[in-house]
Amino acid sequence: MAKKQSKHLQDLFLDTLKDIYFAEQKIVKALPKMQKAAQSKDLKAGFEKHRKETEGQIDRLERVFSIIKEPAKGKKCEAILGILKEGDEIAKEFKGSPALDAGLISAAQAVEHYEIARYGTLKTWAQELGLTDAVRLLEQTLAEEKKTDATLSQLAETSVNLSAEAA
Amino acid sequence: MAKKQSKHLQDLFLDTLKDIYFAEQKIVKALPKMQKAAQSKDLKAGFEKHRKETEGQIDRLERVFSIIKEPAKGKKCEAILGILKEGDEIAKEFKGSPALDAGLISAAQAVEHYEIARYGTLKTWAQELGLTDAVRLLEQTLAEEKKTDATLSQLAETSVNLSAEAA
Repeated sequence: MAKKQSKHLQDLFLDTLKDIYFAEQKIVKALPKMQKAAQSKDLKAGFEKHRKETEGQIDRLERVFSIIKEPAKGKKCEAILGILKEGDEIAKEFKGSPALDAGLISAAQAVEHYEIARYGTLKTWAQELGLTDAVRLLEQTLAEEKKTDATLSQLAETSVNLSAEAA
Repeated sequence: MAKKQSKHLQDLFLDTLKDIYFAEQKIVKALPKMQKAAQSKDLKAGFEKHRKETEGQIDRLERVFSIIKEPAKGKKCEAILGILKEGDEIAKEFKGSPALDAGLISAAQAVEHYEIARYGTLKTWAQELGLTDAVRLLEQTLAEEKKTDATLSQLAETSVNLSAEAA
């Protein structure tokens, strides 16, 4: 890789690392609220599990910052603020409705897909930059996010009927 | 499905349909700007192809509105505004940099993943609501979005070296 490119890509990598670091910190605060709002036991448990996972993901991001010898620092991420704001609105609007869990799952899947996009990108760039240890860490988180998204898809397919029974 | 649930899920479906309808209209306006900003011929062509596809996706959404006998109307989607704003910032910050295309691809993949999340959700709900024709339309768009994301991933892997050669 040409040196000039490498320097610019490093900047872009750091920029996006700060973006997702900010996002994860917002997500870890949002998850307990989503857990509280959820109606079904399975969904509550799913949010709790993902909150713990997210703490581990934040830890991994801090290790990536340390690999590139930069202080772990967030940068305001307008995307996650928008995604979480929409989730809040759905939670308020459908509070008490049997469709609430379906709405919460939808909000959570929008969050997951944002993370899948960002970690996928970071992993590719870490490969290009030859940051082998960072690739491994980012890959672990990416796999977790994809698994969480798949679990939410399964819950989405069952949640409607489940909450209909509860209603 | 219990009737009560069905009514609430219909509201949620309509709400999310308006959200993605608003989002697609913002995306179709953002794509020519991304196409203009892109450095590589392949990426420019990719954005142009996706702009045409997006027009078809807007048309499909209008058909879904018509299936549920509702006027096609958008609802402000904070998520896509945040995602596109971040893309704009990257485009400005990395203008003239050999890493610009990598940044544009990253922004486009965040958009794609937002759409994948929303269309996946809408498809599941349309199935629950027994809206067979809507399922088919949403499925077509979902498949297109996934394909676009995969194409962007391939471009991401090659773009760094390509732009390094161009620099």
